[in-house]
Amino acid sequence: MANPIESDPHGFRRRGVLFVLSSPSGAGKSTIARKLLADEPKLSMSVSYTTRAPRPGEVDGRDYHFVDVDRFREMASNHEFLEWAHVFDHRYGTPKADVFHTLSEGEDILFDIDWQGAQQLYQLAGGDVVRVFILPPSMAELRQRLERRATDSPEIIEGRMARAEREVSHWDAYDYVLVNDDVEECFRSVKTILAAERLKRSRQTGLIGFIRGLIK
Amino acid sequence: MANPIESDPHGFRRRGVLFVLSSPSGAGKSTIARKLLADEPKLSMSVSYTTRAPRPGEVDGRDYHFVDVDRFREMASNHEFLEWAHVFDHRYGTPKADVFHTLSEGEDILFDIDWQGAQQLYQLAGGDVVRVFILPPSMAELRQRLERRATDSPEIIEGRMARAEREVSHWDAYDYVLVNDDVEECFRSVKTILAAERLKRSRQTGLIGFIRGLIK
Repeated sequence: MANPIESDPHGFRRRGVLFVLSSPSGAGKSTIARKLLADEPKLSMSVSYTTRAPRPGEVDGRDYHFVDVDRFREMASNHEFLEWAHVFDHRYGTPKADVFHTLSEGEDILFDIDWQGAQQLYQLAGGDVVRVFILPPSMAELRQRLERRATDSPEIIEGRMARAEREVSHWDAYDYVLVNDDVEECFRSVKTILAAERLKRSRQTGLIGFIRGLIK
Repeated sequence: MANPIESDPHGFRRRGVLFVLSSPSGAGKSTIARKLLADEPKLSMSVSYTTRAPRPGEVDGRDYHFVDVDRFREMASNHEFLEWAHVFDHRYGTPKADVFHTLSEGEDILFDIDWQGAQQLYQLAGGDVVRVFILPPSMAELRQRLERRATDSPEIIEGRMARAEREVSHWDAYDYVLVNDDVEECFRSVKTILAAERLKRSRQTGLIGFIRGLIK
């Protein structure tokens, strides 16, 4: 039996979804993003431009497009990015042309960005964007998850908790808000949202040809 | 295991969905509506007002609110209907107050109306409305389905076919358009749409209380 939350049942040509997943660090977004990418062949991450140096094993053009600061600035001033951000002294940008090409090919793109990135994206690609925010069941649970990782110092955990509160306060900048108290259930909800969004008339670009055939 | 396309996973208070299913006669909407009502305890049909006489077995207040023409006209001029229509010499209207009360209680309402009804509804209840249009796989298939019923004369079938073409031409007045070439698959898609729409932030009225508790 096919997956019960399958979309594209008729194989019409469709425009892809620009699918944003945001959450405070520790709320489980990375796990859900990984599961989603593994489960959805039509969904991929966009390849960003960055000014940071490649890490061992990273491949230019696959993991990132590695560029120097001057090139990055030039692209930014030419409005070649859908959104870009400064993170820890490095710049990261999402290339507009690549994203729109991918969407027009009927492939969906996953974005793992915060509310400000989501806002930038929405301003430039409004109707293509679907924004999902994942909340932790409680801040105590979030703190426990961060502590359980045992990779961060107490100071860094405090910083993450403060940042999490600020992130959560922007919950109303999202189309959907989910609470991740059960990762499988949350994953199911994310799948359901993606499947329904793909079915939207506005994305079913092949429908018009079908309709013309129907009432010719 | 719970139904994989279950919504309301966190039991937050939410505002109901005003769920419109339209299709040309014979495209399978009634079957899907029946399956949906049987499968979704939070979904029901609204009880309309009508000027036609009760049929045997029909109960006032359950099947319809039966009123005379003067009372119906009075209600219409008082803007008490969300939408109303003239069908074969009788009037049918959807009571606004009842519908909004039901939505505020977190219950969804199914509407089996045409594109004009959907348009009226959207004008008065915009954000609450989700409009789904169900297409037949082809007009030849639609004709076969109408002929297979063997209840209608050839003239009535011709009339239905002409009406179907007009209906289909309004496909772009809907949020979602599905092709019913497999009733189970089409039903699954309708369930997916309803589940995702219930998860929309704008309907999760209980979320704000949860957020306040989270970052108090």
